Amino acid sequence: MADWIYGRNPILEALRSGEKIEEIWVAEGVRRGGAMAEALGLAQSGRIPVRAVLRKKLERQARSVGGGGAHQGIVARLAPFVYAGLEDILLAPEDGNPLVLVLDCLQDVQNLGSLLRASEAVGVDGVILPQRRAAGVTPAVRKASAGAVEHLRIAQVGNLVRAMKRLKDAGLWIVGLDPSAQKTCWEADLTGSMALVVGSESSGMRRLVREACDVLVRVPMRGAISSLNAAVAGSIVLYEALRQRQTPR
Amino acid sequence: MADWIYGRNPILEALRSGEKIEEIWVAEGVRRGGAMAEALGLAQSGRIPVRAVLRKKLERQARSVGGGGAHQGIVARLAPFVYAGLEDILLAPEDGNPLVLVLDCLQDVQNLGSLLRASEAVGVDGVILPQRRAAGVTPAVRKASAGAVEHLRIAQVGNLVRAMKRLKDAGLWIVGLDPSAQKTCWEADLTGSMALVVGSESSGMRRLVREACDVLVRVPMRGAISSLNAAVAGSIVLYEALRQRQTPR
Repeated sequence: MADWIYGRNPILEALRSGEKIEEIWVAEGVRRGGAMAEALGLAQSGRIPVRAVLRKKLERQARSVGGGGAHQGIVARLAPFVYAGLEDILLAPEDGNPLVLVLDCLQDVQNLGSLLRASEAVGVDGVILPQRRAAGVTPAVRKASAGAVEHLRIAQVGNLVRAMKRLKDAGLWIVGLDPSAQKTCWEADLTGSMALVVGSESSGMRRLVREACDVLVRVPMRGAISSLNAAVAGSIVLYEALRQRQTPR
Repeated sequence: MADWIYGRNPILEALRSGEKIEEIWVAEGVRRGGAMAEALGLAQSGRIPVRAVLRKKLERQARSVGGGGAHQGIVARLAPFVYAGLEDILLAPEDGNPLVLVLDCLQDVQNLGSLLRASEAVGVDGVILPQRRAAGVTPAVRKASAGAVEHLRIAQVGNLVRAMKRLKDAGLWIVGLDPSAQKTCWEADLTGSMALVVGSESSGMRRLVREACDVLVRVPMRGAISSLNAAVAGSIVLYEALRQRQTPR
């Protein structure tokens, strides 16, 4: 199924962030000022086909992806997101030690998007998601990632524990993020080849996933509450790994 | 205006996270199993009054806060959030150097909630928000903060630049988060008395706010995209400040 997005600002943002758009439909007779004009300008310079269609047809397309009243006369078809294979990720590292992110059942699309954005910024070699009970790379995730998914290798796997074993065989150290861990991310050595595993918002890693980790680390907590937002916690540990790699102890 | 929340899981979560709830209404005749039973148990042990009311009355209350169809037979009235004064925050530090968070026009309630959650976890002495053009501590923010707001001093100020001057007079170093800064948060010394300023999701700090900073820092970026989610970026710098304070160079 094709991924459609709708509305002037979302489409303008997608164009700006370099998301791959295959075509744009504009309602016949719609005003072409402001964000609409800017979007159409970017489409033109990016050689993206723009079609004028009957408002009714555009309305129907927008409605089919949940944007019945909110399309503002413009919809866009994203290129289907192309997942990588697990082996592509293992082949990837260009320099130094591989850094891979493994997500166990993250469900909130905002969280997933934010964490993918941070992963891309840190320069991870790839991200591994389970096929079931987890958000995939939907248009909402692509939007929340601010275009980061277009620059990431993301693999979907049927069995996360088996994928983690494959990472171990390839020489990666498996580091699980767990609020009850003894070691903090500052104490742990994150400079080697490693995969960071982040669990779901509500219940963390599943038992078998946790047991497949080589070591557990936590983000230090100095207040009254017991956990952070999953995307924030994962991003903090990814950045700590990058810091340790760039600033030798 | 009182802050009402609705629905079984949201109310259960609010009770678990220690949010101050003044009373709970349950629709007459509603089934009291599962999450409902657990919520009512917690209400009882927390001595929170529970009233059985006509479904119509409850429906009307839920609708007035946007939960027309989604109340599941239960609504709860939160105690009004009590803002602190700027001077309360300056008086606050119990040990060592003050660490204050200043937010310039953060508008997304999920981002604000996540960042407040991280602030509480880091142990900041207070958070300063502008009164206008920014999200305040609404029920949605309280929910996204997972109860962290109940443990934080948060001040709303009419003029953010003036508040920053007051912080300077009190001896705080003002550190602005800006993607175009020369120094990274790893290079900057964040161990002294300081306030971290985080701008809005879309356009960063306003000009006058940026100019009132003593130094600008950025989060390092190694990928193709140019910025992080505002809550993630702010949380990374807060945690870097905590790390530097706890692990002397």
